[in-house]
Amino acid sequence: MATKHLFLLPGDGIGPEAMAEVKKLIAAMNAKLGSGFVTDEGLVGGCAYDAHGAAISDADMEKAMTADAVLFGAVGGPKWDAVPYEVRPEAGLLRLRKDMELFANLRPAICYPALAASSSLKQEVVQGLDILIVRELTGGVYFGEPKQIIDLGNGQKRGIDTQVYDTFEIERISGVAFELARTRKNHVTSMEKRNVMKSGVLWNEVVTQTHKARYSDVKLDHMLADAGGMQLVRWPKQFDVIVTDNLFGDMLSDIAAMLTGSIGMLPSASLGAPDAKTKKRKALYEPVHGSAPDIAGKGIANPIAMIASFAMCLRYSFGMVDEADKLEASIAAVLDQGLRTKDIFSPGMTEVGAVEMGDAIIAKF
Amino acid sequence: MATKHLFLLPGDGIGPEAMAEVKKLIAAMNAKLGSGFVTDEGLVGGCAYDAHGAAISDADMEKAMTADAVLFGAVGGPKWDAVPYEVRPEAGLLRLRKDMELFANLRPAICYPALAASSSLKQEVVQGLDILIVRELTGGVYFGEPKQIIDLGNGQKRGIDTQVYDTFEIERISGVAFELARTRKNHVTSMEKRNVMKSGVLWNEVVTQTHKARYSDVKLDHMLADAGGMQLVRWPKQFDVIVTDNLFGDMLSDIAAMLTGSIGMLPSASLGAPDAKTKKRKALYEPVHGSAPDIAGKGIANPIAMIASFAMCLRYSFGMVDEADKLEASIAAVLDQGLRTKDIFSPGMTEVGAVEMGDAIIAKF
Ligand SMILES: CC(C)[C@H](C(=O)O)[C@@H](O)C(=O)O
Ligand SMILES: CC(C)[C@H](C(=O)O)[C@@H](O)C(=O)O
Repeated sequence: MATKHLFLLPGDGIGPEAMAEVKKLIAAMNAKLGSGFVTDEGLVGGCAYDAHGAAISDADMEKAMTADAVLFGAVGGPKWDAVPYEVRPEAGLLRLRKDMELFANLRPAICYPALAASSSLKQEVVQGLDILIVRELTGGVYFGEPKQIIDLGNGQKRGIDTQVYDTFEIERISGVAFELARTRKNHVTSMEKRNVMKSGVLWNEVVTQTHKARYSDVKLDHMLADAGGMQLVRWPKQFDVIVTDNLFGDMLSDIAAMLTGSIGMLPSASLGAPDAKTKKRKALYEPVHGSAPDIAGKGIANPIAMIASFAMCLRYSFGMVDEADKLEASIAAVLDQGLRTKDIFSPGMTEVGAVEMGDAIIAKF
Repeated sequence: MATKHLFLLPGDGIGPEAMAEVKKLIAAMNAKLGSGFVTDEGLVGGCAYDAHGAAISDADMEKAMTADAVLFGAVGGPKWDAVPYEVRPEAGLLRLRKDMELFANLRPAICYPALAASSSLKQEVVQGLDILIVRELTGGVYFGEPKQIIDLGNGQKRGIDTQVYDTFEIERISGVAFELARTRKNHVTSMEKRNVMKSGVLWNEVVTQTHKARYSDVKLDHMLADAGGMQLVRWPKQFDVIVTDNLFGDMLSDIAAMLTGSIGMLPSASLGAPDAKTKKRKALYEPVHGSAPDIAGKGIANPIAMIASFAMCLRYSFGMVDEADKLEASIAAVLDQGLRTKDIFSPGMTEVGAVEMGDAIIAKF
């Protein structure tokens, strides 16, 4: 097979431990299937700041831009709580998203059958849950200008952030949501706060127009984001695909992830637009969980979200649908078998570390 | 007792039905206890738009400004979905909040024992839950300028909203949260997105300073708002008082309300600063639920949130703590007795309408 360039950015905290399991998997796929993965590795987040004073170096940014796909671990930790805002660990992730123009963030929230009982929600509410949050990732209040703190004198400061959305941004993210809905239950729910925000009014208008012009076969609902959050908690199975802006997507996808009882298990994909000539999309894959500095280095991290992110990479960046299906099935099988890392342990199960969990999944694969 | 001026704004949908039960209660208190309530009534929301083309008239605004307290029902409905943004039903509520300077929105999320089983969360997760969300209500992205849609030509528009917070706004809302925490479990959790938003950086800084300067006896935690949403779903009992901005407060308080299984039951208070001379605060009390146009006019609405909002009014505007306690106990007693409106009905209980529910609570009081 053709050479596939992966750029690995393990980052901080449990990032490297989780990434180590994916590296083993990549090696196994190359050896057994001749998958042709070539990897390179860089620094992002706090470790990058320690090495060269920025949350990601220009050299590593360049490698991310030219790789076929980027695998990202996690960033941040108390060690870097006091570093300047511009070089805080998260700045590395935000620069990757922005410079690679990864506007479409796909966050599936699925409830693994083996874990349905461990959600804080009633089992019947989450059993079989399979929703997909499509979050806009390069616009909104994350990147709008002005974004600053002004000293007003007299001990007063003013903090300003700007939420900005243009028609084309809303159009392209809703296009992604409608396309994906067609491969699922054909139902999109768009969420905004049009009753308070002008960007919400525009969001609602453009999603409605895009639907009418190109996707009228898909069922479309609109919900205010606060009501949407409530409905996610009340009866999440009413949703199929949710499309929403950067900030609401941040909140709503974390809540959706928590519902499943599988927060350490959920992957995400961040995609750019297909290149006009090659049709290839820039892409970055990362777990939804954070760097969990409290358990880093102990060998007890759950590598499943990172491995499931690599499954998304196989699916979306390399069209390796069979391999992706098989990898996801391997994860489910290992859980069915009773293997659990500490974060998802429950009585009667077998507690394992990150390495054993990775080994078990690779063995099934 | 001294005359107490209440200005009633029942609004749209189920607002008037819920308010009708409070009116009966007020009449009963005047007759039995000589409480001295004098009421006046106005229009807000869609009904105000129908009557005079604005979501609230200047005359009614004036009455709200001079009353001792405002009781607000609910606004909005499909009938007014297409009215211009400036006069949409919500504009009436937002004008009341802004012009009355009601910067402190208190949203208790309590789980009525009789309803613990009806939450979508596991009973052990919500049983006994009693948290208080303190939401900033007159700042942030709700009111910041610019707030507009610009036509860029070429079929492109740009929607802009501005999140703005000044030091004094953060200081006063966190003061309210710390004061209230002292009357509860003495624990405040502040939520923002300081890893992405400059207003979040300032928020974090000012809450920390306020704590250090005046409230170091209170336990203070900081949480990112997305993580906070997750923690609310995972284990809400870890919280006592949550203080957060206008938009995060909107999302998080709705989620907290839904956790309790009591969304039709939860009240809120919106308070201004104490007047320098009289020490009196401007205040508005409203249910957390909306106007529920689908069930309006059928007599099946749940009046409990409106009645519980009046209990908050007794407590915060008139210092009638015993009466407030007694009213809240009456609500709990009627639920224990098995009376349920349709929204909270479960097998084995007795289904009643708004009027019977109101009568039963008044009879217990
Ligand atoms: C780390 C942080 C900047 C990031 C975000 O807010 O987008 C994270 O919460 C996420 O959801 O990916
Ligand atoms: C009706 C709407 C403007 C309002 C808000 O967004 O504040 C409501 O959702 C609330 O929480 O009181």
